[in-house]
Amino acid sequence: MAKDIKISLLLDFYGSMLTEKQRRIVEYYYNDDLSLSEIAENEGITRQGVRDFVKRAEGQLLEMERKLGLARKFREMMDGFQKIEEAADRIREYNRHYIYAREIDESAKQILEITQKLCE
Amino acid sequence: MAKDIKISLLLDFYGSMLTEKQRRIVEYYYNDDLSLSEIAENEGITRQGVRDFVKRAEGQLLEMERKLGLARKFREMMDGFQKIEEAADRIREYNRHYIYAREIDESAKQILEITQKLCE
Repeated sequence: MAKDIKISLLLDFYGSMLTEKQRRIVEYYYNDDLSLSEIAENEGITRQGVRDFVKRAEGQLLEMERKLGLARKFREMMDGFQKIEEAADRIREYNRHYIYAREIDESAKQILEITQKLCE
Repeated sequence: MAKDIKISLLLDFYGSMLTEKQRRIVEYYYNDDLSLSEIAENEGITRQGVRDFVKRAEGQLLEMERKLGLARKFREMMDGFQKIEEAADRIREYNRHYIYAREIDESAKQILEITQKLCE
């Protein structure tokens, strides 16, 4: 498990495997940046109770990523799409300035449409 | 949950979330195409026991895909990479025959390298 994969990313990814209450609490904590005390007040449980919820959920998310590794794989793909987009832009740009080949422009445009659709 | 997503695909994807024994039995059944009786003999349990293992594991795999939808998303990405590759091949081909622009060939080659690396 890479240290640079953040809990909030794992939460986007695997959050639907948590219970509704776990997910709500962890989202308050990681996405909305509420304090343990604020969450405790919202949920009507103790501050320590909130801490336990968060720790347990973190453990589950990290364990899922350790076993499945899908968040890392997805991020690699997103980085790949980004680089593909840049290369397709360079092709279009060069083609537009120096060549004007319709065939090349259309294929490069198709590449951009695919990456944009998949990265939505 | 789309009907066309097959159990063996889900097994590749989420198999590491099953217990070792579950996974072994389901792999015998789906990947190695052994019969329930053959698996029962290998594992020293009843044929009905094997059936229960398989049914329960199927349920877990389908439930994970229902909640996470990652197998479908990955497959869409793989299809996307395939189409990107075809478009990059067309660009190189056209460029090689009619234009000979080094800039275009290099960018198209980069696209192909990225898709090949990510689809390994």
